Amino acid sequence: MKAFVKRRFSPYNDNLMLSRSQIIVVGAGYVGLATAVYLAHKQLHVTVIEKDSNLVDLLSCGLLHFSEPILEKHLKQVVKKKYLTVQVPTKELYQHADIIFIAIDSANRSTWEMKHSAFKQIAEWVGSVPRKKRATIVLKSTNIIGFADKFAQYITNTPHGNRVSLVVAPEFLREGIAFDDTKKPWRLVIGRKAKKDATALRKLYKQIYPDKIPIIETDMKSAELIKLASNTYLANRLAFIHEIADYARIDSLDLPSIQKGIGLDPRIGTDYFETGLGFGGSCLPKDCRLMNSKERTHSFVFESARSAMTINDRLLNNLMLHIKKHIGSLHKKRIALLGVAFKAEVDDTRGSRAIDLANLMTEAGATVQCFDPMIEKGIFIQETKLQNTPTIQDATEGVSLIVIGCPHEAIKTIQPRTISKKIRTRFISDYFNCLPKAKWEKAGFTFI
Amino acid sequence: MKAFVKRRFSPYNDNLMLSRSQIIVVGAGYVGLATAVYLAHKQLHVTVIEKDSNLVDLLSCGLLHFSEPILEKHLKQVVKKKYLTVQVPTKELYQHADIIFIAIDSANRSTWEMKHSAFKQIAEWVGSVPRKKRATIVLKSTNIIGFADKFAQYITNTPHGNRVSLVVAPEFLREGIAFDDTKKPWRLVIGRKAKKDATALRKLYKQIYPDKIPIIETDMKSAELIKLASNTYLANRLAFIHEIADYARIDSLDLPSIQKGIGLDPRIGTDYFETGLGFGGSCLPKDCRLMNSKERTHSFVFESARSAMTINDRLLNNLMLHIKKHIGSLHKKRIALLGVAFKAEVDDTRGSRAIDLANLMTEAGATVQCFDPMIEKGIFIQETKLQNTPTIQDATEGVSLIVIGCPHEAIKTIQPRTISKKIRTRFISDYFNCLPKAKWEKAGFTFI
Repeated sequence: MKAFVKRRFSPYNDNLMLSRSQIIVVGAGYVGLATAVYLAHKQLHVTVIEKDSNLVDLLSCGLLHFSEPILEKHLKQVVKKKYLTVQVPTKELYQHADIIFIAIDSANRSTWEMKHSAFKQIAEWVGSVPRKKRATIVLKSTNIIGFADKFAQYITNTPHGNRVSLVVAPEFLREGIAFDDTKKPWRLVIGRKAKKDATALRKLYKQIYPDKIPIIETDMKSAELIKLASNTYLANRLAFIHEIADYARIDSLDLPSIQKGIGLDPRIGTDYFETGLGFGGSCLPKDCRLMNSKERTHSFVFESARSAMTINDRLLNNLMLHIKKHIGSLHKKRIALLGVAFKAEVDDTRGSRAIDLANLMTEAGATVQCFDPMIEKGIFIQETKLQNTPTIQDATEGVSLIVIGCPHEAIKTIQPRTISKKIRTRFISDYFNCLPKAKWEKAGFTFI
Repeated sequence: MKAFVKRRFSPYNDNLMLSRSQIIVVGAGYVGLATAVYLAHKQLHVTVIEKDSNLVDLLSCGLLHFSEPILEKHLKQVVKKKYLTVQVPTKELYQHADIIFIAIDSANRSTWEMKHSAFKQIAEWVGSVPRKKRATIVLKSTNIIGFADKFAQYITNTPHGNRVSLVVAPEFLREGIAFDDTKKPWRLVIGRKAKKDATALRKLYKQIYPDKIPIIETDMKSAELIKLASNTYLANRLAFIHEIADYARIDSLDLPSIQKGIGLDPRIGTDYFETGLGFGGSCLPKDCRLMNSKERTHSFVFESARSAMTINDRLLNNLMLHIKKHIGSLHKKRIALLGVAFKAEVDDTRGSRAIDLANLMTEAGATVQCFDPMIEKGIFIQETKLQNTPTIQDATEGVSLIVIGCPHEAIKTIQPRTISKKIRTRFISDYFNCLPKAKWEKAGFTFI
């Protein structure tokens, strides 16, 4: 019995210690929720902190505010089992927390600077109270290189900052499979100043991840760079094949053969090499911008990030020229945009290239009618004046051109007979090459 | 018996027809010889055309003028069996040839323009005679995009050009394994105007390659692009990781962890991701330049090719700053350069980055003493005033710094005791991370 008691309260028993740790996750976006739900799924008690009280209510019912079915299934379970709770932020929550995951939207998307005031607030709340047990702040948000050093300074400046450790642990999840990517990451990156700063996170990872997942432990700046550089590489890869596609289209070359011919070199490969409207979403373009943020302490210019953005920006202008070449001026023309999300099978429109293209077409005088089966009917699409039409028929009524905006499965399998009879000209721009061309051509459509 | 005779002389029996075809390969560099030796190895009679009569004599003895052991082994065999002969160019050879592989050094390396006069000459020789059987010219040389169309025009302008077909069949071999890459290519690319233009080459490929090797048949321009774009992609990949390494060095970050952290994303991977002095050699930089050659018919700028070169060029300047930061001015200092070839285990110094760095160091006032075990002792290295010293001891005498220029196996395994006792300061710059650091540090060396 004595032995049992001893074991139960031994500070060396990580499992029991950690299950009693107060874990909070700040931010209820993809990253925050995937992190929190996975921790809770591993039977740890987690509190998610979210400012929006309506969202707190929604999540507390086990419902997500975006489409991520597997994550939602697990959310329901962990909410029901009371491993996960959601609350609006209070100073007390931060003060009682031992491990604080920060997964807030960390950078301003027009200035590409970090949201310092939010981080200062967190530093103050965490560092304002004396602590028996060290607290660990884990930065999962994506930073500019060198930001963690600044944040560490904010923490040091608080009354009890010396009892708070800072760790950079970037996330690499993909939307659509956020839970699975959190459960089985390709690697875990831990950036810290002193080795001891990462003790709590290392223990936590040992508890929730199998040994075979590689852990890279390094300094904070290197960890920040790993995250941004990984996405810059991916952006570069997509920029490269889109640049080739862009040229091939302009010079009327044989793009499918070119893609295949290049990709058959196994050092290049064909995965993650599909073309469409360029790279969008809330990660790749943002991370390329952050690589060269003005706020960085070093003047080194990352050419690879810069050129990926140049290629991506130019692409949409060239696509506009391509469209105009075939259908003439867009002034007063109606155009259907089928698929608006930033990638297939998600309902997230942040950074969507389809929307960027829609905005260019609107500026050129067109009326864009969109339809996205993943997005609620009738709502206004974020950051646009466009409303999601209820049906394909509505979206295609009176149009001179159909543009594929996102290769959702439900878009790829559209039947020509569902297109409005009141269509003006049967032109399609399918830059994703996702439609069965022969079938559509048979139905009288011309691919431009 | 009748059936046998019929079969033997049937024009539909490709094997027999082709074995009687006159095949010539123009150019006795890596590509020309790898092509010719492989064809001869498949028991086809091949004549290699080479202007340099000394080289004709050397090759006719089964000896190579560069280090490529497997290719040389096969060359010996096919010369001995009389499948392969080498001759200086004559008009007659071209006039009697049915298949003409062009593997000459096709572009001027200062203007990045194609060597039109050489191609015009070939067109004239091949197209000046009437032919019973169509002749096929196969462009294996790397072209600017659109060059084949111009070359086709040169052919059309000859008296019997209508009996000559042109095919673009770019090569993708890697130096050091030129024969193996020719024997087992990852893909075969055939670019042609009309399908019939490639009939002879298609038949030849069918005879010498197994069915499982993918063939991509497309137009000539697309084939030209596949070649250049593949190398541009590879140059980009190397530029990317060198840019990260460059920054990591300047900002004193943890490069090995960064490389690993990025490469563990399987969409990125760790192959072809090693850092050193940037990308060099006679292909990647040339092909990036050709992508944006002024001679192209289209004004589209390939950003990916441009930025890869920008990163690569900047790198050497940054390495110079890095060296000066540690050893001060290079004026009147001696520096050892160990390894001069453009890549490990070859003796080719064309486009060597080690030489580029040596030239920068010389310009800065240093005396560079080089040693490359793959290169003949005492000879002057191409395009430099540098002589290959006989031993490591000679190269390191009186030096203030040892720079690793190429990670040959024989360089990686150098023993510290072989370094001259008369070394001035024990500094090493090993940008390849190829030396066993602890061992060298134990011997009193400092890595900078």
